[in-house]
Amino acid sequence: MKTEPFSFMINSPGFIPSYFDNHIKRHLSDMKGQFNNKEAFQEVLEAGDKLLYEVYELKRPEIEGEILHGISIVHPGKIGEEYYMTKGHFHTVLETAEIYYTLQGEGMMVMETPEGDWAVEELKTGGVLYVPPRWAHRSINVHSDQDLVMFFAYPGNAGHDYGTIETQGFRKLVLSKSGKPQIVDNPHWKPPEK
Amino acid sequence: MKTEPFSFMINSPGFIPSYFDNHIKRHLSDMKGQFNNKEAFQEVLEAGDKLLYEVYELKRPEIEGEILHGISIVHPGKIGEEYYMTKGHFHTVLETAEIYYTLQGEGMMVMETPEGDWAVEELKTGGVLYVPPRWAHRSINVHSDQDLVMFFAYPGNAGHDYGTIETQGFRKLVLSKSGKPQIVDNPHWKPPEK
Repeated sequence: MKTEPFSFMINSPGFIPSYFDNHIKRHLSDMKGQFNNKEAFQEVLEAGDKLLYEVYELKRPEIEGEILHGISIVHPGKIGEEYYMTKGHFHTVLETAEIYYTLQGEGMMVMETPEGDWAVEELKTGGVLYVPPRWAHRSINVHSDQDLVMFFAYPGNAGHDYGTIETQGFRKLVLSKSGKPQIVDNPHWKPPEK
Repeated sequence: MKTEPFSFMINSPGFIPSYFDNHIKRHLSDMKGQFNNKEAFQEVLEAGDKLLYEVYELKRPEIEGEILHGISIVHPGKIGEEYYMTKGHFHTVLETAEIYYTLQGEGMMVMETPEGDWAVEELKTGGVLYVPPRWAHRSINVHSDQDLVMFFAYPGNAGHDYGTIETQGFRKLVLSKSGKPQIVDNPHWKPPEK
């Protein structure tokens, strides 16, 4: 970890940062139970454990005042009608935001509060998305053959709560219908307990 | 101010966000005492109060957990040998970072701690710069005829302390020498009081 100011480049076509501390790879097997079509999931998994998305992180102290940041790359593909997507998470410190700048691609961010309010925003090259405090978020690549590449930044003390989404899912899914992304209700969604 | 997730576009060539809350314009007259060559400053000012840089801000609650963000555009130009630049500031809450993504242009970020440590990092299209907590920062456009355009993000509670830099200046200046930017000592710098 660097203690002084530092910079790095994010260059196309690959968008891999010229400097980073962690490279996280999420395969299909890491996403068990997350996709809507369980049969399609098993079928694709048996054909090979595909790489769904990657995250390049820069390390910073995980405290207030610092900004954790990096690049996420969601590859194109589908499990049944459902596009490749990230696990999705709340922040452990719920009252922390996250901000995204889309470097390349076309996607959707599916978001949800602990109270069950939901929102979906389009992700487009050159677009900024603000995820306010309290909103869980999952990014989805809706392009047929291009990576979705985003620069992200969030408060150092935020932390990741993956468990809540693993258990309850998101209220909305984005499925490919006649070749176009459509927002539909998640039949497996478990409403938050009151 | 929006309470739900929101997004906006930053498109070239202008890079003006498709949505914003504040548009701040800094003219030469706002920068009194900040440029090294006082005679050149007066001369340019008398010929007209030029626009040096602009900031487009998105409003968020100024509290921990939120991320303030926007776009800064430093126009090209010089006052004597010194390039157009921003006022530069510490954060009022010193222990807060800032992160920049350069959308276009060529520049330098001049940085300094309250103890007088200094650093200068190049700003290039497609580059990310991390300004750790405690470091004052000023962006400088070293290109002869192109805007320096950056996306910035920092913690909601950071605040701006312009006064310290107005009084003491930065330890280092970036001057144009034989057409190239050079880092030189600031003869007017006042070391911080122990």
